Parts: sequence; C-alpha cells; structure tokens
Amino acid sequence: MTAAASAPPQGPTLAEVDEDAVLARILPLMRGDDTEEVLVGPGDDAAVLRTRGQTVVTTDTMVRGRDWRDDWSSPQDVGFKLVAQNLADVAAMGAVPTGIVVTLVADPVTTLEWVEGFADGVAQGARGAAVPVLGGDLSSAPAGTVVVSITALGEVTQAGPVLRSGACVGNRVAVRGSLGRSAAGLLLLTDGRAEAAPHLVTAHRRPDPPLSAGPEAARAGATAMLDLSDGLVRDGLRVARASGVRIDLSRAALGVDADALEPYVGEDAAWECVLGGGEEHSLLATFPGQPPAGWRVIGSVCRGDGLTLDGETTPVRGWDHFGRGARA
Amino acid sequence: MTAAASAPPQGPTLAEVDEDAVLARILPLMRGDDTEEVLVGPGDDAAVLRTRGQTVVTTDTMVRGRDWRDDWSSPQDVGFKLVAQNLADVAAMGAVPTGIVVTLVADPVTTLEWVEGFADGVAQGARGAAVPVLGGDLSSAPAGTVVVSITALGEVTQAGPVLRSGACVGNRVAVRGSLGRSAAGLLLLTDGRAEAAPHLVTAHRRPDPPLSAGPEAARAGATAMLDLSDGLVRDGLRVARASGVRIDLSRAALGVDADALEPYVGEDAAWECVLGGGEEHSLLATFPGQPPAGWRVIGSVCRGDGLTLDGETTPVRGWDHFGRGARA
Repeated sequence: MTAAASAPPQGPTLAEVDEDAVLARILPLMRGDDTEEVLVGPGDDAAVLRTRGQTVVTTDTMVRGRDWRDDWSSPQDVGFKLVAQNLADVAAMGAVPTGIVVTLVADPVTTLEWVEGFADGVAQGARGAAVPVLGGDLSSAPAGTVVVSITALGEVTQAGPVLRSGACVGNRVAVRGSLGRSAAGLLLLTDGRAEAAPHLVTAHRRPDPPLSAGPEAARAGATAMLDLSDGLVRDGLRVARASGVRIDLSRAALGVDADALEPYVGEDAAWECVLGGGEEHSLLATFPGQPPAGWRVIGSVCRGDGLTLDGETTPVRGWDHFGRGARA
Repeated sequence: MTAAASAPPQGPTLAEVDEDAVLARILPLMRGDDTEEVLVGPGDDAAVLRTRGQTVVTTDTMVRGRDWRDDWSSPQDVGFKLVAQNLADVAAMGAVPTGIVVTLVADPVTTLEWVEGFADGVAQGARGAAVPVLGGDLSSAPAGTVVVSITALGEVTQAGPVLRSGACVGNRVAVRGSLGRSAAGLLLLTDGRAEAAPHLVTAHRRPDPPLSAGPEAARAGATAMLDLSDGLVRDGLRVARASGVRIDLSRAALGVDADALEPYVGEDAAWECVLGGGEEHSLLATFPGQPPAGWRVIGSVCRGDGLTLDGETTPVRGWDHFGRGARA
C-alpha cells in the first residue's frame, strides 16, 4: 500500500517562493530522459515534439476534494494517478503516448513539499510509461483550491485510431484489466477500513492501466474501445450509443470480478463497484473475433440500443461531475 | 468596447444540469468548421489530428479572481483571451496553430449561461485564427473557484522552431504589436475609469496577438522569440538569460508606446505599463538584420547579461503568480 501523507506538511509555501524558483525545483523532478522525439523540452513558449502521421490529444483534470483527499492520497499518488488516467485515454484510442504537459493551479498556502511530491508522482507515472514531460503551467488558485491537469499526446499505430463508434452487431465485448477495484478501495477508505484490503486501496490511489493493450487491441482489429473512467455501465452505454447498437453484458462473466471484491465490501457493494465503479481505467473494447491474450470476454454486441445485463436493462450507474456522484 | 456582463447571471447552474447535457450544449458552440487535419474531433477518449514533422504544444490557464473579474470581463472575453494567450505562445515558436483542447473547472453554482458565454468566446477566438477545438474536459470546483485552461498544438514551419536561446550579440531586438496597453486598460478598470480609454480596456479584455507574425519572423531568420506575457523587462530578461547575452532597450524607441498611454494614465504609469505590463501578448524577437515589415526595432543584443535600458540596469517588473503581482 502506498503511504498517504500522514505527517503534517512542512516547509515553505508557494506564496513564500518565487514562481521561477518553484519551476526550477519541480521541472527537474518531473523530467526523465527525453525520447528522441522531444526536439524542445520545457522552458520555452512551447515544447516541440517530432510527430508522424496522426497525433492523438486528450486532457483530464483532478480537483482536490472531488478527485482526491489529502488525508487519503499522498501528492505522489495524485501525480501518478493523473498521468495514468490521461495515458489510459491515449491507449483507448489504440495509440502510444508520446508526451504530456502538466498544469498545477494551487492555493498559495500549498507547501512546496506537496508540489514536489506531486511532481515526483508525475515523474513516476511518466517514466513507467516512458513518456516525456514536455512542459506545463503554474498558477495560484483561490484559498482551498488545488487543481491539477494534464494534456497527453500520443501516436496512432498503423492500424489507425479505435473510436467508440465502431462496434458491430455480433462483436464480442471484452475488458482488459480489473473491474470495480478502485471503487471498492474508495469505499474502504470512506468506511475507515483501508487496512482490510490494501491492494484495493492502492488500485484507487494508483490505477495501473494496461497501456500497451490499447495499441495491441488496435492491431488485433478492435472495432471500438474506451477506457473505463466513469463505470462499466455508463461507459458501456457510451459505446452502445456511439455505435448505434446494444451492449449485452454477461453476469456470469463478471462474477469473477464481483467475487474478488465481495470478501471486503459484501456482495451488493461488490456488484455496484463492478458495474458502476469509476476511475478503474481498464480498457473496454469490441472485437469481431476472439480478443488477444489478456482480454476477457464479458458480453456481446446486439441489435437495439442501450446496455443490458443478461438481456435486461440495468440502471445507469456511475459518476456525474456536477450531479450527486454515483447514482444507483 | 466589449460589454462586460452587467446583467445578473440567470438560468440553471451546472449543478442543475447533467454533465453530458452541459457538454451537449457547449461543444457545438465551440466547434467551428474542422480543418482537414482533424481526423477525430471531440467526443471520443481523445481527438486525432493529422500532423507533420514537428508539433509544438503549450498550455496556459486563467483563474477567476486572479486573471479576470466577472464584473470586468464577460465570459466571452475570458474565452477569447484564453485562446489568444495560448495561440500567442504557439506563434512565438514560429508555428501555426492547428488545434486546442479546452478545460473548464467550475463551481457548480456557475450558471450555464456563463459557461455558454465562455464557450462562445473560445469559439470566436478559435475561428478568428481558423483553429479547431479538438475536445476538452469539464470538472466541478470548490465553491468560488472557476479555472479555465487550454492546451494548444501547432505546426512548425520549415524554418524550424524559434527558441528564446538563440539571440546573438549584434542582433536587433524588435517587437511586433503594442506595449503596455493591456496593463493600462487594467489600471483604468481598477481606477473605475474604463470609459476614459475603451480601446485600452479592450486590449486588456481581448488581446489580439499578431499570430501570423510568428511564422513570418521564423522565415525571416529570427534568432530568438517569445510572446510578452509577463512584461517587457521580465520577458526580455528571459531571452537574455536563455541566450547568454544582454538585451539593451532604447528608451527613445519605446517613447511612442508610453506617449500613447500617457493621456490616460499619466507619464509614470505609462512607462510602468510599457516596461512591466503583462498580458500584452505582442511578440518580442531578435533578428540578425532588419526585421520584416510591421516589426519595430526597440533595442539591441549586447555582450554581458541581464536587461538594460539605454545601458542602465532597470528593476525587474512584471507578474509573479504567487508573489505580490507587479513589482516596481
């Protein structure tokens, strides 16, 4: 389990340090070895990246209090997770990530120690995926606010990008990676029972998307793909709607996922996590035939619309940013 | 003069509208005609852009209360300005902008009307530069916080990117665009005298960077370039430091800029605005010979380090995000 920041933050705050000094401290922390595609790194008006035919671009943001709590996640966790969820979006297009830019908007009372920890977490996530940090932006926020954001770039393979809209009737629906673990970990944190299943709490704090599986799926002929950020049902519905089909999931195929969570959260919550749990960042894809190794078939693409579970409509579960959160 | 939002905001807030419904309202507002380089637009995990050899990427953020005030700037102004300052960074590399992604992190009590106005302003700025909106992200923020952010992509011309580090002793220092107008406009707003010079207030609300001048300068052999975001002295120092040279500015050459502001803010403030005023987003570049048409020579590149005015050291003026703002 990753240690959350338990000691009180110490040292100077952003208000006490010159902006250039902050950048001088954190940029080296975030910078790993540049790839040979990086022609100009951080420090100029913009970075310059050597690119080939098709570049994917995506952006994702985390807000303190909504996407993380400082008593549950260390700054390293936050940086690591922010990278992971952005790179998952790149992978879900069937692309290989090539670079990220990082934005930090922070209350001036934020400690330099927190910011350095965040930069370290970004570096860990980026290095793990061999993705260079190309630059970023630093701004002060109103009291109490910390917002972190990444825009990720990637390169599409020769197989071309895999969209949400290509699922065809008769395709198999498959998932690569776990289901419901992040949500179960969050539930344990909420209940003050993190020690009951440290592996689930880690899944929440530091999701580990199967990045290389995205381009592999593209090469294997995946017809549609996305990463599971808002829950299986909600994200599955997105594929169904974009493709003009119905996605039918198999309760039997998902049983293994629920069974893995049940000892820690109980049966009902386990199924809620599997079907509605967000921030998992596993990949969901549709294939005309058998998916590549590592993918599990969990359903099929049918005529009609919407999402069903063993043929029956299931309530929309998942995360709505401005609504009430998880909705049963 | 652009009308600031004077009527009280009305209609539903973000908390009262489903996130997908918000996106469904604002994405069409932001979307102009796609260029033929846009292979996949908003709505999937990532957008896909056709790219050639070298892609520039830059990101810039605005925070309500720090970068704008709702009683001084309409949401259209905010969106327009956010686009302008990002595209200025692209131009300052000698590149042509090819796409942007937009992030909005907003207090749930933010009205849909404000968000639509912001999206409209983004669209105005993007269409004016023929730049497609490729996608974005939408998140809720703590009470009182609104943060907007853009990441911009661009394509470097055959002349290659123009960095800050290439200024050579003997080069001429030139500026393209105005100096100090945005800061003077802000000063008038602060003093409650916006009506005294609506053109300066507009320069603050809606900067209009000379975007095409960036690639032109690159083709004309500019050795260094940046956009003036934090003030002439502060940004000039950045070129000097990156290039290992001294930049000497000519008070006589800058007199025309100060003279244009003096009737509205007085002589001392006019010079403060010219030398230290941020958010102007004009381009500063160095050239081995005569700069192209439209550029004004305002100084020269000399041996040594730092920035001087008629050979004498001048205090660092400009904006520090976590410090006390403009510093004399």
